[in-house]
Amino acid sequence: MEKQGEHKTLAEQAAEELIDLIRRNSYGPGDKLPTEAELSERLGVGRNTVREALRLLVSRNIVTIRQGAGTFISEKQGVADDPFGFSMVEDRKKLNRDLIQVRVMLEPPIAALAAQNAGSQDIEKLEEILLEIEEMIEKRQDYSDKDIEFHQQIAICSHNSVMSNLVPVIGKGIAVFASEIKSVEYEQTRISHRAIFNAIRDRQAVEAQQAMYFHLLYNENRYLEEQKE
Amino acid sequence: MEKQGEHKTLAEQAAEELIDLIRRNSYGPGDKLPTEAELSERLGVGRNTVREALRLLVSRNIVTIRQGAGTFISEKQGVADDPFGFSMVEDRKKLNRDLIQVRVMLEPPIAALAAQNAGSQDIEKLEEILLEIEEMIEKRQDYSDKDIEFHQQIAICSHNSVMSNLVPVIGKGIAVFASEIKSVEYEQTRISHRAIFNAIRDRQAVEAQQAMYFHLLYNENRYLEEQKE
Repeated sequence: MEKQGEHKTLAEQAAEELIDLIRRNSYGPGDKLPTEAELSERLGVGRNTVREALRLLVSRNIVTIRQGAGTFISEKQGVADDPFGFSMVEDRKKLNRDLIQVRVMLEPPIAALAAQNAGSQDIEKLEEILLEIEEMIEKRQDYSDKDIEFHQQIAICSHNSVMSNLVPVIGKGIAVFASEIKSVEYEQTRISHRAIFNAIRDRQAVEAQQAMYFHLLYNENRYLEEQKE
Repeated sequence: MEKQGEHKTLAEQAAEELIDLIRRNSYGPGDKLPTEAELSERLGVGRNTVREALRLLVSRNIVTIRQGAGTFISEKQGVADDPFGFSMVEDRKKLNRDLIQVRVMLEPPIAALAAQNAGSQDIEKLEEILLEIEEMIEKRQDYSDKDIEFHQQIAICSHNSVMSNLVPVIGKGIAVFASEIKSVEYEQTRISHRAIFNAIRDRQAVEAQQAMYFHLLYNENRYLEEQKE
């Protein structure tokens, strides 16, 4: 009963041609697209179809429309909000356990890759985030958004493009439940983030992997303990 | 410049309330939603807003609209098509290598979990898919779609809900490039699928993990060899 590839609407076909056009022209985040009139001419379809196609690309986070300014390539680069429908899941505790399980599988080898592949600018950026989190820890502030950024930057350091999209999605899924964790262990986070950062900076892939294991498993165990209480 | 949480349109707010309603009422795939008129009354918004909200949920694969029949919960359960914007990536070969790298990290531990957690119905379903692929191999048919199903069913056997959404997304990403692989090694696939299935059926987690490693690394090496030619 789902829409099949063969039964695409005009707007869906136009949306695919637009994606092709974006890719062929190497448009990057923030770049401005041609006007609706120009696109209509290039694709050989009506302006209403172009408008509908653009709306489809907005819903897929491929472009963003700024009133009065035009249509731009989205900074989100086509990564969907909530791409796995986490917001639909009823059993939040099970989802949280599943997400942690995925993290424990993925992030230690990503940290190893990061130690191996990071460029010097990648590492500078990682240190910046590390220092911001340390400052927030100092002030006992909620650093959960910055924490997602830290883990995403490690994924960026791995130079695997799939990881850098995947890791924040998993991280944000878990963040939903942060409120369920009662005591934020500021000091332990500070120590293990440091250990991960140092290993990546010093190109120690094995140490980076192990430091990430420890960081995640410490948090997992804390979470599971608190679920029991 | 991106849309922030605070600046949601009426339709976006209504879409979130609909997701809440779907979750609270434990609607499952294929279930029919109340009519637009009823939803309009329940949410206290106009029917145009409901219609626009439903369109947003269609674009997120949460519901599907069948002309004349009504609105139903989508079988895709909110998992976006191309959630990571793979269709936008210019360097397809790099993307393929990255996807294979992710698979090699994720799927062996998933196979181990599957051996540990699969129910008898999960295993029956896995065997069904295995036999279908073996028949296609016998006839030298293209089994790539069924292959994605096989790997997804192993993820379902793991009873980790995130995995069962994630694995087919990674698999489909790779499938795009299947045409780049010149010689399909039918016999090797038959043997290693069998080994994975047998280990899961026999509750041998370590063997399942190793069989999956071999299967993926064999394919990876074949792919990398062919890229060199």
